[in-house]
Amino acid sequence: MMDRGRLEAFSDGVFAVAITLLALNLTVAGPGHGHGSLLRQLASQWPAFAAYGVSFFTIGIIWVNHHALFALMTRVDRTLLYLNLVLLSFVVAIPFATATLADYLRVQGASGTTAGVLYAGVMEAMSIAFTLIFVHALRLGLLIVVPPPEERRSAVLRFGLGTVAYLVTMAVAFISPLVTLALAAVLAGYYVFQRTPDVPGDEPSA
Amino acid sequence: MMDRGRLEAFSDGVFAVAITLLALNLTVAGPGHGHGSLLRQLASQWPAFAAYGVSFFTIGIIWVNHHALFALMTRVDRTLLYLNLVLLSFVVAIPFATATLADYLRVQGASGTTAGVLYAGVMEAMSIAFTLIFVHALRLGLLIVVPPPEERRSAVLRFGLGTVAYLVTMAVAFISPLVTLALAAVLAGYYVFQRTPDVPGDEPSA
Amino acid sequence: MMDRGRLEAFSDGVFAVAITLLALNLTVAGPGHGHGSLLRQLASQWPAFAAYGVSFFTIGIIWVNHHALFALMTRVDRTLLYLNLVLLSFVVAIPFATATLADYLRVQGASGTTAGVLYAGVMEAMSIAFTLIFVHALRLGLLIVVPPPEERRSAVLRFGLGTVAYLVTMAVAFISPLVTLALAAVLAGYYVFQRTPDVPGDEPSA
Amino acid sequence: MMDRGRLEAFSDGVFAVAITLLALNLTVAGPGHGHGSLLRQLASQWPAFAAYGVSFFTIGIIWVNHHALFALMTRVDRTLLYLNLVLLSFVVAIPFATATLADYLRVQGASGTTAGVLYAGVMEAMSIAFTLIFVHALRLGLLIVVPPPEERRSAVLRFGLGTVAYLVTMAVAFISPLVTLALAAVLAGYYVFQRTPDVPGDEPSA
Repeated sequence: MMDRGRLEAFSDGVFAVAITLLALNLTVAGPGHGHGSLLRQLASQWPAFAAYGVSFFTIGIIWVNHHALFALMTRVDRTLLYLNLVLLSFVVAIPFATATLADYLRVQGASGTTAGVLYAGVMEAMSIAFTLIFVHALRLGLLIVVPPPEERRSAVLRFGLGTVAYLVTMAVAFISPLVTLALAAVLAGYYVFQRTPDVPGDEPSA
Repeated sequence: MMDRGRLEAFSDGVFAVAITLLALNLTVAGPGHGHGSLLRQLASQWPAFAAYGVSFFTIGIIWVNHHALFALMTRVDRTLLYLNLVLLSFVVAIPFATATLADYLRVQGASGTTAGVLYAGVMEAMSIAFTLIFVHALRLGLLIVVPPPEERRSAVLRFGLGTVAYLVTMAVAFISPLVTLALAAVLAGYYVFQRTPDVPGDEPSA
Repeated sequence: MMDRGRLEAFSDGVFAVAITLLALNLTVAGPGHGHGSLLRQLASQWPAFAAYGVSFFTIGIIWVNHHALFALMTRVDRTLLYLNLVLLSFVVAIPFATATLADYLRVQGASGTTAGVLYAGVMEAMSIAFTLIFVHALRLGLLIVVPPPEERRSAVLRFGLGTVAYLVTMAVAFISPLVTLALAAVLAGYYVFQRTPDVPGDEPSA
Repeated sequence: MMDRGRLEAFSDGVFAVAITLLALNLTVAGPGHGHGSLLRQLASQWPAFAAYGVSFFTIGIIWVNHHALFALMTRVDRTLLYLNLVLLSFVVAIPFATATLADYLRVQGASGTTAGVLYAGVMEAMSIAFTLIFVHALRLGLLIVVPPPEERRSAVLRFGLGTVAYLVTMAVAFISPLVTLALAAVLAGYYVFQRTPDVPGDEPSA
């Protein structure tokens, strides 16, 4: 069995690097490359800035939820370690999916849809991994507080809601990649402002 | 409610990666690319080195202040977590703003001004986020030591001073981006050498 | 003598950055560069995705084993510090070896073989460094639990097994780089699902 | 006053990212770019691999010494924080200096010399910053064990030795950049194998 501390330290490191690498997608050409004024360049790159903002807060929210869940764990087994690696493997892919979505945000047709499905698909995979971690921890009694069965079901449902939401986000990519990004932004906003009273130890303090 | 430790660990990770990514802006062409001698190349890249130095110490100072402020917190609520994410989203954008300022440091006119406003604007946004964190912590009594009202106002003012200073830094970009960088360097120097006796727990030990 | 905590913190940082840099190998060209549809681009880049997955879990497994081994150490001497640096120097080279293998995965002949040998060779070097750390810790009694001689031999053998397995992985590169990647994937899968009851403190909890 | 823990965590993060970014200098062209076989490419890039190895162990050694020194500190003042930032600003510049040295390692004349002086100069600056940290900590009595005056002088001398050694390394760049790298390798080897009995708490345990 492993202690929780180093799993959290490693995960925090991965989250921190992944969230910071997002900014590598922000670039402008130097002067005299025939790209027009800097202001025009920055304006034409609004997809990169919008995608940066949405992905930054999405990774931030995953980190907050990751922390809240693991703070409840009394112990960590090997299966959990590897489920956590699966989760992190999708977190690390977010900068790539973000760059691709930004590049194709104004593209209609098949390639735009592909970019939207890729972006929402990485979020979906991450969301499924997160739900598996929660279900595994519940089933093996790795949590400090074992919720009664009816709360257990509602908690699993609530977790599973994210996986449904990102499925919908994948679906709307067939309208346009921009709608995918907009829906991902709404989801991030929802998670920032939601209250989650049924996860013990996570009560808002105000 | 969350414990402070993991918030600090994650923030430290983001600060560490962002400060290190600054150096990715330092590059020279290899031999035989018709760029002249290495010495000439290095000399012509003084804007990249100057911007690197100023940004490195600016991020360093934010980290020092971040540490000093969070060391006073007894607890951390969700709002603070998300305000901290807002702060970090601008810290992470500093390497991009720095690279852009360096590229346009010798450009007069609109594009030079844009680069200066972008650079100082990211600092300004970061400074506002920092002030919001401080005000929120004060209002909800999250600090170990609750200062009396008159000190509270002076502390808020002192914090707010940074936001005014970076507004001025944005304004001087209309003179030239070089003046913006110079003023940012002066501000960094000021924060390094200032004494801040009214933040408890932060007294200089010598 | 050094305390274990900072060695683990530094190693965790290196593991976290190396595992995240793997994703820098995932890139697609923007629209209108004559590369065909995004879907076609993504499909043609399956070697990059496959190599990313295998390397991600390989680094993840090394991290898990690193943690399990160092959790048993009562103290850390200078030799161990430097052996750990040797280990990390190969971990850090994995993103480079992964990118090279992905680039040459569909290349037959000498260059394909070179890519496979390079990839498996980095894993082999890492595996040898890991074994040296284990042997050094055993010989100097740095472990909490000193296993009896017969278990000691079996543990060393089990550790050494990895070095033999990666030698074979190097050898199959002469068939094709794809077989090398496939065998590395099998090895990663084996380490994920194996049980290691003879390393104390590492029992599966379920 | 600050607590030591977060300074170490932040510094460890910077060391970990800087040491991992070194590997970004390792690259080969994909197949079919007219660069010859992969083996030939790898062979022709021996300067990149050699510089990677020397810089990796140099950063590793600084980290080990950083740890050993700060483990002795009872408290950390603002001056020390900023001296530490100066140290880190040169550590972060090492990947750039390393890439430049590797690029110019086979270049004779002025540019080769410049690359060697740049590389050794960054090490020299780092070494001076390290000595300043030590001297400051000694003078203000920030160390757990205050050595008697005669040991103090010998410790300062020993620290200062590194600054002299890197001055010599800068000087030999006028012979060739290769001699600079070779001398840096010798210095790294010396620091790995040296015994430092006069720094308390750092005795080898075997």
